[in-house]
Amino acid sequence: MDEQKPYVIGVDLGGTNTVFGIVNARGEIICDNSIRTQEYATAEAFVDAGCECLRPLIEHAGGIGNIKAMGIGAPNANYYRGTIEHAPNLPWKGIVPLAEMFSKALGIPVAMTNDANAAAIGEMTYGVARGMKDFIVITLGTGVGSGIVINGQLVYGHDGFAGELGHVTIVRGNEGRLCGCGRKGCLETYCSATGVARTAREILEKSDRPSLLREIPAEKITSLDVSIAAGKGDEVAKEIFAFTGEMLGKACADFAAFSSPEAFIFFGGLTKAGALIMDPIKKAYDENVLNLFKGKAKFLVSGLMSSNAAVLGASALGWESK
Amino acid sequence: MDEQKPYVIGVDLGGTNTVFGIVNARGEIICDNSIRTQEYATAEAFVDAGCECLRPLIEHAGGIGNIKAMGIGAPNANYYRGTIEHAPNLPWKGIVPLAEMFSKALGIPVAMTNDANAAAIGEMTYGVARGMKDFIVITLGTGVGSGIVINGQLVYGHDGFAGELGHVTIVRGNEGRLCGCGRKGCLETYCSATGVARTAREILEKSDRPSLLREIPAEKITSLDVSIAAGKGDEVAKEIFAFTGEMLGKACADFAAFSSPEAFIFFGGLTKAGALIMDPIKKAYDENVLNLFKGKAKFLVSGLMSSNAAVLGASALGWESK
Repeated sequence: MDEQKPYVIGVDLGGTNTVFGIVNARGEIICDNSIRTQEYATAEAFVDAGCECLRPLIEHAGGIGNIKAMGIGAPNANYYRGTIEHAPNLPWKGIVPLAEMFSKALGIPVAMTNDANAAAIGEMTYGVARGMKDFIVITLGTGVGSGIVINGQLVYGHDGFAGELGHVTIVRGNEGRLCGCGRKGCLETYCSATGVARTAREILEKSDRPSLLREIPAEKITSLDVSIAAGKGDEVAKEIFAFTGEMLGKACADFAAFSSPEAFIFFGGLTKAGALIMDPIKKAYDENVLNLFKGKAKFLVSGLMSSNAAVLGASALGWESK
Repeated sequence: MDEQKPYVIGVDLGGTNTVFGIVNARGEIICDNSIRTQEYATAEAFVDAGCECLRPLIEHAGGIGNIKAMGIGAPNANYYRGTIEHAPNLPWKGIVPLAEMFSKALGIPVAMTNDANAAAIGEMTYGVARGMKDFIVITLGTGVGSGIVINGQLVYGHDGFAGELGHVTIVRGNEGRLCGCGRKGCLETYCSATGVARTAREILEKSDRPSLLREIPAEKITSLDVSIAAGKGDEVAKEIFAFTGEMLGKACADFAAFSSPEAFIFFGGLTKAGALIMDPIKKAYDENVLNLFKGKAKFLVSGLMSSNAAVLGASALGWESK
């Protein structure tokens, strides 16, 4: 880390809000601010607003001379090119060279990657993966994302888009659930927040066992409802998490055959279910993994579970930039 | 490559024979020799015999001073530790520190990895992967092995055993074929030479369509028989390769979601079937891969298809050693 420049900027660019934070080398956000992503019809207007939003933060940090670089975590971001490409949930269409635009406006290096990769770099820099060279972060949110680290380096692949583990096929053939990507049986359709809600509806429909979840209209059940019910000991809710964990554990067994990581690190709202989801993951992993790998990998929950985890993750990219 | 030392030794350590070769920087084997692996009850006796076998070869190369290092490709080899660990097809049980033993006996650095990893390094050094930083070699032999290269580095994982893509689960549940590893539905049970023979028996049994393969007793059919029949235009034999290729293509679609390689490189006897297997692989890949990756990856056949490919692959490890 650059002794002359004690701070980096971390940016969590989301479909609704974009949060800017100034982060020090200990992983503390010394100040932050946000703008509404959707309010800016063009990327130019967004960059202008972002710089405006950053101005008082940069001043608070003692000026731009104290800031080494900026890291952005954004959907559909390409690390190699510093572009956001065809992001369905952002107002700007096509390929947007956002890293270059911010770099020109601020006069510092800017790197960009997708949210899950930013989380992986964050875990390595500030979180539970400190000192690890081989691990996989799996983000369980609206979708299922992943950031893969091998030999201490994030895996971007030849085109910058590697690490789409939410879209490995976990159920083959026609019985696989239809995914937003147009294919069937993707891990994401079972293990995302929406996947859990879908599992809830399926399990409730299949029997008439009593459950707290029956008090909610089926189409309105969320993964949070399942979490709350499971926390109260609801057996059906526990079964929903057991099924979700089983799918994840089976997938991780295949991932081990690929890169044999030291740890699988889970990130996102679903991990709040704790042992209710982590135990089934570990059980299914041990039942399905090649003997050679049995009992070796750790199963951890993210060490960056604050509301600012995404900003921290993105900021970690800044320390890496040259 | 070391200008002072123009040669490396490549060793293909197999269950039956062990081949030693002296290789120059252009990937030419200038001389080679072999011993029978099974004749040596202890690793010590094997190393003695190996050095004896190497003596005239080293002399031919102008003495040990001309040799930079030795690379060994061996089953169950651990790259980090330079050991062979619990290899079921070798006479030496437990953990054998073979790299260190040869290094002491010869006075040069010795590195060791498994056969498929050696093939991947060989492709990168002398073969079709020259200049590539992200690719996956899949070996289709008695089993299915793999060597994965990411960011120009071989993936060993945290324990040295990564890259076991023959053991990802391609058919889940009870209908999956039983694998030698004790699990069900591994890719290897469908796409190895024995997997192809198994597919042949299953397809022949299911119908009474005429086929050249019916001239061979079912339990004696080999993948070579299927290749020969397919080469003669036998429709059943072509269907067997189509099924094999479909399984491989589906698996590669999942591998793309992991590391988004520039190329998949196939190595081993089955690739001699050419378009009969490569076309179904590509077709299944395109039908199953995430849109993001469609049409990007190359599907190649190894550039090291001589009988000495394994020696060349292992020798390439020698150039990397320090």
